[in-house]
Amino acid sequence: MEKHFSLEDILGMEGYYRRNLMNSISGFKPGNLIGTVSHRNVANVAVFNSVVHIGATPPLLGFIMRPLTVPRQTYHNIKARGFFTVNAITKDFYERAHQTSAKYDEMTPEFEACGLTPQYTGRHPAPYVQESPVKLGLQYEEEHHIKANGTLLIIGKVVEVLADSRLLGPEGHINLDQAGVVSVAGLDSYYVSELLGRLGYARPA
Amino acid sequence: MEKHFSLEDILGMEGYYRRNLMNSISGFKPGNLIGTVSHRNVANVAVFNSVVHIGATPPLLGFIMRPLTVPRQTYHNIKARGFFTVNAITKDFYERAHQTSAKYDEMTPEFEACGLTPQYTGRHPAPYVQESPVKLGLQYEEEHHIKANGTLLIIGKVVEVLADSRLLGPEGHINLDQAGVVSVAGLDSYYVSELLGRLGYARPA
Repeated sequence: MEKHFSLEDILGMEGYYRRNLMNSISGFKPGNLIGTVSHRNVANVAVFNSVVHIGATPPLLGFIMRPLTVPRQTYHNIKARGFFTVNAITKDFYERAHQTSAKYDEMTPEFEACGLTPQYTGRHPAPYVQESPVKLGLQYEEEHHIKANGTLLIIGKVVEVLADSRLLGPEGHINLDQAGVVSVAGLDSYYVSELLGRLGYARPA
Repeated sequence: MEKHFSLEDILGMEGYYRRNLMNSISGFKPGNLIGTVSHRNVANVAVFNSVVHIGATPPLLGFIMRPLTVPRQTYHNIKARGFFTVNAITKDFYERAHQTSAKYDEMTPEFEACGLTPQYTGRHPAPYVQESPVKLGLQYEEEHHIKANGTLLIIGKVVEVLADSRLLGPEGHINLDQAGVVSVAGLDSYYVSELLGRLGYARPA
C-alpha cells in the first residue's frame, strides 16, 4: 500500500520520526570523515553524510554544514586554515567514524578520542584519516548560505588525492565496493554495497 | 600502495579518466529520478546522483544542476511550474532509469521513451515515477549559482511523500535496502546495499 504524507502531516510528526524519515527518504548517502585543524593546531575529524560531486574540471566537491547557531569546529577550522580533507569510511572502522559525531569540546584531539590516526602530507595543513583507503585534500573555494534553513553549502577544490592503488580501475573508476566503503541511510544506519551493473553511455533508442 | 595525485596530475589526466575518478571518489551517491513538466505540459524524467539532505524542519532537499550553457529541461520545467519530484530508483528498473540520461529533444515524452509510468496526485503538477517505492513532491524554494564552475544548487521543500508502507520502520526510517533501492558510483555503476549496522547516538566516552 502506498502511504501519502502531506507537508502538514510531516510537520505534525514527532521530531525524531520526522528526522529519521527525512534523512532516509532521499536515498543512500556517502559516508565520509572530514578532517580539519584549528588555528591552535588541534586536529578535528567529523562524520558527514552530505558530500556531493560539484564538478570534475576543476575537481570540486561540496558538503552541507548545519546552521552556525552554535560553534561548528569543522567550519571554523576551514575558515581559519583554508583546507580540509574528505576521507571514505569503510566497514573496518565505521563504528569509530560514527563516534566522531559525539560532542567533544574544541580542545579534545578527536582523532585520538575516537581511535583514528591523523596523517599529513606536505601539501596543506589539514589531517587525513590514515585508516581510509580514499582520501582527498581540498582547498576552500566558496560557500553559500541557504536561506530556507540557515545551512551552508561549503565548496572545496581537490588539490590532492591519496588512494589505495588496488582500488583504481583502468578507466579511473575507484572500486569502492572492493574497499568495503560504506554508505549511510538516515543518521545511524551503515551499509555495504555490491555491484549490480555498470551501464554504457545512454543514447535515444 | 597509496598512490598520490596532485591537482596538476588530475588536470593532466584524460577527460574520461578524470570524470570517472572524480565521480567515484566522493563515495556512493543516491540514485534518483527527477520528474518535471514543461510549460507545454510535456512530462520529463531524468536521473540525478546529487540529491542531498538540507534539513528536516522544514523538510528540504537539494540537488546539483549542470551549467546552463545548454538548455536543461529539468531546470526550465522547475522554473516554469514551480514543482518537481524526487523518486528512488530500485534494482527492478535501474536500466530504464539510466536510459533517461540519453539526450531526448524537449518534445519527446521521456517516460514513455524509457518505459516508465508517470503518476500524478492532485497536489501539484509534477509527475512521479509510478515504479518507484519512495516518491517525494517538492516545491521550488531557492537556487545558488556556484561561481567555481557555473553549476547550480536547486533547493525544494518537500510538500508530499508517497512511500510503500511496508518500508516504513516504527521510528520513521525508510528501509531502503528492503526495497532494493540502488546507489551509484561514478556515472555508470549501480549498487545494491546490505545493512552493516545501526548505531546509537554517539556521546563522548
